[in-house]
Amino acid sequence: METIFDSTDAVRNSKPLQYVREFVYRSPVKLERGGLLSEVRVAYETYGELNSRKDNAVLICHAISGDSHVAAHDQNDDAGWWEIMVGSGKPIDTDKYFVICPNCLGGCRGTTGPDEINPDTGNRYGLDFPEVTIGDIVDVHCLLVDDLGINRLLSVIGGSLGGVVTLEWATRFPDRVVSAIPLATAAHLTSQALAFDIVARNAIQSDPNYYCGQYHDKGVVPASGLAIARMLGHITYLSRESMMKKFDSTRNQARKIDTTFETKFSVGSYLAYQGDKFVDRFDANSYVVLTTAIDNFDLGGTPLELQRSLKRSMCRWLILSFTTDWLFPSFLSREIVDALLAMDKRVSYCDIPSECGHDGFLLSDEFELYGEMIRSFLNNVSFELLSGGMSQLDMPDRIDYEQILDLIPRGATVLDLGCGKGGLLARLRQRSGSRLQGIEIKESYVLRCIDRGLDVIQADLNKGLSPFADHQFDFVVLSKTLQTVHDVEFVLDEMLRVGVRGIVSFPNLGFHEHRRRLMDDGRAPRLESGTSKEWYNTADVRFLTLADFEDFCSKKGINLHHCIAIDTKKQRHVEEKPNENADVIILVLSKYTQRTMNSVDVEK
Amino acid sequence: METIFDSTDAVRNSKPLQYVREFVYRSPVKLERGGLLSEVRVAYETYGELNSRKDNAVLICHAISGDSHVAAHDQNDDAGWWEIMVGSGKPIDTDKYFVICPNCLGGCRGTTGPDEINPDTGNRYGLDFPEVTIGDIVDVHCLLVDDLGINRLLSVIGGSLGGVVTLEWATRFPDRVVSAIPLATAAHLTSQALAFDIVARNAIQSDPNYYCGQYHDKGVVPASGLAIARMLGHITYLSRESMMKKFDSTRNQARKIDTTFETKFSVGSYLAYQGDKFVDRFDANSYVVLTTAIDNFDLGGTPLELQRSLKRSMCRWLILSFTTDWLFPSFLSREIVDALLAMDKRVSYCDIPSECGHDGFLLSDEFELYGEMIRSFLNNVSFELLSGGMSQLDMPDRIDYEQILDLIPRGATVLDLGCGKGGLLARLRQRSGSRLQGIEIKESYVLRCIDRGLDVIQADLNKGLSPFADHQFDFVVLSKTLQTVHDVEFVLDEMLRVGVRGIVSFPNLGFHEHRRRLMDDGRAPRLESGTSKEWYNTADVRFLTLADFEDFCSKKGINLHHCIAIDTKKQRHVEEKPNENADVIILVLSKYTQRTMNSVDVEK
Repeated sequence: METIFDSTDAVRNSKPLQYVREFVYRSPVKLERGGLLSEVRVAYETYGELNSRKDNAVLICHAISGDSHVAAHDQNDDAGWWEIMVGSGKPIDTDKYFVICPNCLGGCRGTTGPDEINPDTGNRYGLDFPEVTIGDIVDVHCLLVDDLGINRLLSVIGGSLGGVVTLEWATRFPDRVVSAIPLATAAHLTSQALAFDIVARNAIQSDPNYYCGQYHDKGVVPASGLAIARMLGHITYLSRESMMKKFDSTRNQARKIDTTFETKFSVGSYLAYQGDKFVDRFDANSYVVLTTAIDNFDLGGTPLELQRSLKRSMCRWLILSFTTDWLFPSFLSREIVDALLAMDKRVSYCDIPSECGHDGFLLSDEFELYGEMIRSFLNNVSFELLSGGMSQLDMPDRIDYEQILDLIPRGATVLDLGCGKGGLLARLRQRSGSRLQGIEIKESYVLRCIDRGLDVIQADLNKGLSPFADHQFDFVVLSKTLQTVHDVEFVLDEMLRVGVRGIVSFPNLGFHEHRRRLMDDGRAPRLESGTSKEWYNTADVRFLTLADFEDFCSKKGINLHHCIAIDTKKQRHVEEKPNENADVIILVLSKYTQRTMNSVDVEK
Repeated sequence: METIFDSTDAVRNSKPLQYVREFVYRSPVKLERGGLLSEVRVAYETYGELNSRKDNAVLICHAISGDSHVAAHDQNDDAGWWEIMVGSGKPIDTDKYFVICPNCLGGCRGTTGPDEINPDTGNRYGLDFPEVTIGDIVDVHCLLVDDLGINRLLSVIGGSLGGVVTLEWATRFPDRVVSAIPLATAAHLTSQALAFDIVARNAIQSDPNYYCGQYHDKGVVPASGLAIARMLGHITYLSRESMMKKFDSTRNQARKIDTTFETKFSVGSYLAYQGDKFVDRFDANSYVVLTTAIDNFDLGGTPLELQRSLKRSMCRWLILSFTTDWLFPSFLSREIVDALLAMDKRVSYCDIPSECGHDGFLLSDEFELYGEMIRSFLNNVSFELLSGGMSQLDMPDRIDYEQILDLIPRGATVLDLGCGKGGLLARLRQRSGSRLQGIEIKESYVLRCIDRGLDVIQADLNKGLSPFADHQFDFVVLSKTLQTVHDVEFVLDEMLRVGVRGIVSFPNLGFHEHRRRLMDDGRAPRLESGTSKEWYNTADVRFLTLADFEDFCSKKGINLHHCIAIDTKKQRHVEEKPNENADVIILVLSKYTQRTMNSVDVEK
């Protein structure tokens, strides 16, 4: 077929799955919604070697139409559905990690599911297959992990349905998961995503060949219904942008394919092809069972409910969403991130800029970014597990960082707003193992922070710090960022709500050089010394002197505890006339008069 | 039923349509794709009175499942699908306008369509009904308009399918349309929207009760397929946000309804209800015919093709999109707007901030904004038609406007960037009828401009002026806006590309008061004199002196033709040391050395 028909949802079709292993659990398994399976089979594949400590296992959870074949086992093998991610030297490096990928309970790719023979009756389950939850899927995974003799998984990772399974793992068996990487997923589906699943099931179940799920007995399959379900799925996996790229230029050039469906437009022939192809390899009852399981998944509809669910998790988190994913939109990942932040869990997050929609996590387009994030995160998790602590990095001296470090007692918890590449946080980490969190908007900096083993979330400061509780951190730092912020009042309010103390540093417009430049030369001062930035292209949008800021603090009821004025060119502190003699100001602030510094005098 | 089931897509069901009139065209009608109808019936309703000049007729085009009943005719009558818009004192004021709303060709609400009897055979058309285009729908509309003795329509207006019909009217019969108001529509569907229609048709046509369209003969209807099509439709009419509002809090509280479809979740019971209800009132073949017509509609996939299509239009345009409409996303309206701007057509545009998705144009949520825009626009179109020209408004003197007016010869074409409430443009309009266009980001200002009879589009200057051709305007004005612009280089580049001359005004940081404030007081200068804005909450983000700007121009190869320096407090021109003595600067610029001022010396 033409490339237009390449499915991004790569699952191999029919070749014998020679590397698939089978685990049979021969005791009854009770399901959450009351069902009982008298035994359970799990089809799975593994890659790499389990080490002697059995602490290098990574469990990969597949998406709805995926299976155990996550990657090729050798050169002659078919490519897997996450070939880019798993293998020797790849982010999930099979030279280092022991990778396990099981097919889900309720699926149709080898693990017990509705199209398998019910050992109790000798007939296919069909409609008799009990209702399955995401919890049941994880319970069955866990039987396999037990059987492999693995106590703790270094990581559980998956996207879409696989992401939901990952979330369930981290909360159902918290002490068995060292780290979790849910991608393109959610703690609960949107009503819109739910609606698509419902229409898909209606299409299957109103197909006259469905026979209430007993179609196998009649020797037919609900092909139209399943194909229509799949067409809908494909629309939701792609973004509008990627559909435009794929189809707009060939809008009316339908491909000739042998189908009973409409093939009027190029996108029509694509959908017909994908729908028909899916019928050949997937079971309609499995589709109903698995979509129902994900539709019923719900870790909580309110922030508090979500926090309650996630509270029991003990792992480090890396959460990734994709900007054009409208099936599992980014704000749902942020809901999880926010709940974890509120519970002081260690979490990193990035909203990967992508045009690929929900499929983004399977595709190579943005792989350089999200693949490296996963690689770096796993490296660090693995290193921490071995070393039991922080890595020692070689970092050059930086006068402004040194000044800020002096202001923060060892052991204090710190939130760094606009943390950049993590220079300050990395220095703080070397001093103590206390809770440190960065917020940064630039993706490449987020990656650098993750690479340094830091916890960082990608977010826009201008949107505030709503996930954090009042005084959740001992210190909140805004280092050389104030002057780039639009809503100064809001950001400072938020900073001093979340931190017992705030530390702000900014360039001082009152510095004598700046004054003279305006007064004598009639030119706008250049605050970014040492750069070639001019008034028309500087990132700075706020211009203030120390006196302006002091005035602001007094007006807003902000306490000024400490002021460090620096002349950075002369590399010295300024004691006299700081508003005139200092080009950089560092201030320690707080909002409430009643508060004392006691709570943060941890090690001083 | 509970309010959850209130359909936003308001169409009355079964009551006798006592006000529906019928026009029968008894000659054969040839269709664009080769079909022939031996006669055509049109069901339509009218409101208000046609005046003696027959120039107050407004044609309203309904959406896919709509009909001729746009509003109630009296207090005992059912509400219509656009009750908020049409009636005495409403935006489409039936005290002033003669409103006509016909049902579309191919529909099933009284106008000739596939479930009507074919006069040639005495049987229902069914599958024999010929393929219909949007052009055919307009041709049939036009037969009705002819029959009513109307030569020119004051306005054609419609949303969704109705918007597409409006676009076709304006380009098919340009001399018969004075103004056009397409809402929530597009010159061609996205591949995503196309895909939904295709899946909907596949659901209908693979329903075994479809019988290749001859279901009426069998005494059945493809109820499952049509219901599934409707469920899909409903998902696409709502936004994710509005679905969350409607269903998230009651996620698992399904309503008990009598249906064969799944009713597991609240959204599931809603979809089942809407699907079943639609089957009672709509014909499956009509759904196939009308969706195929809109899917095939295409005014051009490239900017040039679109310009070619729209070139022949002669009307004034008001185009409205809705921010959360993902079925007809805003950028598609912008494509139309951009093509019209490139062709120097008179167009106003606003992207209405809304959470309601595609349904936004039918709902009351944002009615205050878009309803008033339509009312103001129609008022002005109607006034222009009567007066043949510009309205005279009473406007107070403003020194900076007077200065800029002096710089612009009468008859020059002007693009005003960040035009605000249209103060400058309104003054220009009073001087001449030449082409004037405003760009403004704030919706309430856009409304004010429309109310003043100006042509204004809502857009963000920082995204550039790509729709406009090089030197399309004699003058491009950036009045007191430069200092709020982030990407100064890009905006000025664009401005001087599109204008033969640019006029820029900005507050001068070099003004002696500002200098002294920094030098003597150690405080950041306040550029917005007369306001209470401070360094932390001013809209200004760029700070420059006249000398800085002159330097910038010389570096960028920008010619400075004229400089007006003003001391606004003393209300006088500054001749000496403008960089020190003027607080506001007005400059005339151009980019190319070869260009002369000749081309714009129109009336000087």
